[in-house]
Amino acid sequence: MAAEHLLERALRPLIATGRLDVVTPDGSRFSVGSGDEPRVTVRLADGGAALALIADPELKFGELFTDGRLVVERGTVYDLLRVLLQDNHGDRGRLPGRLLHTIRAWLRPLFARNGLAGARHNVEHHYDLDRRLYSLFLDDDLQYSCAYFEHPDATLDEAQRAKKRHVAAKLGIEPGMSVLDIGCGWGGLALYLADVAEAGRVRGITLSKEQAAVAAARVRAAGLQERIDIAIEDYRATQGTFDRIVSVGMFEHVGRAWYDAFFRVSADRLADDGVMLLHTIGLTGRPNDTNPWITRYIFPGGHLPTLSEMLPAIERSGLAVTDIEVLRLHYAETLRMWRERFLARRDEALRLTDERFCRMWECYLAMSEAAFRFEDVVVFQVQLAKRNDVLPITRDYIADREARYRAREAVLPARPVPVSVPAAAVAVTAVPA
Amino acid sequence: MAAEHLLERALRPLIATGRLDVVTPDGSRFSVGSGDEPRVTVRLADGGAALALIADPELKFGELFTDGRLVVERGTVYDLLRVLLQDNHGDRGRLPGRLLHTIRAWLRPLFARNGLAGARHNVEHHYDLDRRLYSLFLDDDLQYSCAYFEHPDATLDEAQRAKKRHVAAKLGIEPGMSVLDIGCGWGGLALYLADVAEAGRVRGITLSKEQAAVAAARVRAAGLQERIDIAIEDYRATQGTFDRIVSVGMFEHVGRAWYDAFFRVSADRLADDGVMLLHTIGLTGRPNDTNPWITRYIFPGGHLPTLSEMLPAIERSGLAVTDIEVLRLHYAETLRMWRERFLARRDEALRLTDERFCRMWECYLAMSEAAFRFEDVVVFQVQLAKRNDVLPITRDYIADREARYRAREAVLPARPVPVSVPAAAVAVTAVPA
Repeated sequence: MAAEHLLERALRPLIATGRLDVVTPDGSRFSVGSGDEPRVTVRLADGGAALALIADPELKFGELFTDGRLVVERGTVYDLLRVLLQDNHGDRGRLPGRLLHTIRAWLRPLFARNGLAGARHNVEHHYDLDRRLYSLFLDDDLQYSCAYFEHPDATLDEAQRAKKRHVAAKLGIEPGMSVLDIGCGWGGLALYLADVAEAGRVRGITLSKEQAAVAAARVRAAGLQERIDIAIEDYRATQGTFDRIVSVGMFEHVGRAWYDAFFRVSADRLADDGVMLLHTIGLTGRPNDTNPWITRYIFPGGHLPTLSEMLPAIERSGLAVTDIEVLRLHYAETLRMWRERFLARRDEALRLTDERFCRMWECYLAMSEAAFRFEDVVVFQVQLAKRNDVLPITRDYIADREARYRAREAVLPARPVPVSVPAAAVAVTAVPA
Repeated sequence: MAAEHLLERALRPLIATGRLDVVTPDGSRFSVGSGDEPRVTVRLADGGAALALIADPELKFGELFTDGRLVVERGTVYDLLRVLLQDNHGDRGRLPGRLLHTIRAWLRPLFARNGLAGARHNVEHHYDLDRRLYSLFLDDDLQYSCAYFEHPDATLDEAQRAKKRHVAAKLGIEPGMSVLDIGCGWGGLALYLADVAEAGRVRGITLSKEQAAVAAARVRAAGLQERIDIAIEDYRATQGTFDRIVSVGMFEHVGRAWYDAFFRVSADRLADDGVMLLHTIGLTGRPNDTNPWITRYIFPGGHLPTLSEMLPAIERSGLAVTDIEVLRLHYAETLRMWRERFLARRDEALRLTDERFCRMWECYLAMSEAAFRFEDVVVFQVQLAKRNDVLPITRDYIADREARYRAREAVLPARPVPVSVPAAAVAVTAVPA
């Protein structure tokens, strides 16, 4: 049992609080740490599991759990991550190395080739999964990005509505303005900007046929076809000029090699007195590469930026940074709620997919939450403009607009996500090669 | 008159609004632009002036004005800068080149050697000027950095108090906490943090003997010697750990080669659950070098950072960015007030210095204002922490604390800058070589 012995030695320095019991394939056990919070039991199902973990923890942790070769018998996979990571909370100088690197770099590819065709393939991989799966754990508006917890006791639906409100307030939309929404998802933000912020024209673009179909159906159901158009379109193919540009949870897929193109295209599309808001996951520590397991199985082509990776491209683009908010624990809370909701309806997920997929999805949500809670993963809201006088000189306008939008939300109709979408619903206006 | 002819051709594409009349040494005139707002007349006093302007506008503009070889006969030197720059406002893609580069890069050296001895020399050059000079145009607290205009009609004193309040609120000081103030100036912020934010211990450090003497005298006059100590000390020499670190208007002098040292030292001095606020002038466009005239005559050793220059050093330091506010036009307003106050008391300034100095100072204030108003110069307030859970998850706490501090300000005594400072007042605790 040399591999299990090596694993025990690797685990020992990680755990100061809580206890991890490991059951080896021959039924013997070892324990690391002491105490009861958290207390986790893991069973290694075969002789190769310990060796794989030691040899390549970044890739193998997720694979072994997904394949049922690493079974969490007491607690959950999130509890396992917590017992391994919580004692290093906030002390990045003492990171013990490879095993933590698993989480630290959870969403980064070694290299991204996001040309037009590649980008479309990567998006289909993740977002064209059956919408019924997302409906099991997302909020009613299908917001698949970090929520904004104005109050600690907010529900997921309230926090996702507060996110749209916060984003709209920072855009400073005046009634009638045009808005480009890059990566519009299932259309919830586009509808909010037209309804609540009174944008006159919103163009929502996505590379996901499934998301575009749902978004277009929702626009039609709301009778807003004159003001919102949804297109299956790459951001590099969009034409025209917009008063405002918003992009929430899409920049993670752009890829490092395309940062200059992204900001140059954004500057070209933005009016001279325009405002842009970019909402993206990122890292506050050193630039790094994303966990290869996540890259292979969850998000091909993605890269989590540091500010030092984004800023040179911004400074070259003609856009100027006007504000950067760093949302720290909001995504940890969002992911906790998603995971709890997913597990509560796991039997329904199982009917849509299979056991292996459900394990993979739980692992993805757990690793993501641990990364936001215990590592240096955050969400950046980067506000950009071309001129220094298009926004008020203090940030007070954000709270003022939020109050105004909150009042409007109360009197506007709900725009529910339809249960089924007719096949011909999507307007395909520009398809990348 | 070949040089005047070349100058006319260089000026013509710059001016679309307003009019510039140029009187050449032989008494002939040429005009560029039309209209009356602004309308400026400049006289070139000798045959070499036009040639010097064409050959090296960045260095020569300030020199010629200071030396009285470029005389503004109608309007002010600020009006002259405005007529040259205002039409490019917000459209950095159309910058016409060298002459605008004068302002664009107004505060950057080609190279900075800020070792301990060099840093001290550089600071003495600027800040040990007679305090009576600064008293002519600064607010009553001698805040020599960007004010914060909560309301457009705020007075300079109100806006400088709001700046201290805004900085203190972002630091999230709890009663009794220790604070390190790197570059404490004449002590106004240190007194505010002890008085209003109820810091238990503040260490204010500066390299200016003159500033340290005044700050220490104010602390003694306030009876706060037990809670505030002022030292002539380089930030690299400070010992100990602090709950909070603040640095307002000092980072401009650090020099690019020392960014890693600055943030590494800051991380070493900051408690694990600490918060740091860095307030510095910077650029939102491409990294650049400071105007050589400013470097030679006003701020030897300085460098204005872009975020892309600061972030790599921050990401390597163990500090994580938690918020970046970009103050855009606040410093333009501050500088306008300083310049108007300086010109209103120019006869007093003339008794303290001489005609040449007064011209240089007016030019410095005018160039600085134009840089903030018409170019990409801003103030960054970068908030930093080591852990992701030491600050509230939304930014609402800033306004909440400001409201609390505003109420305390009303009941606390004023801490005026003394008219004269006894020679032995300063506590010199650590002097760089």
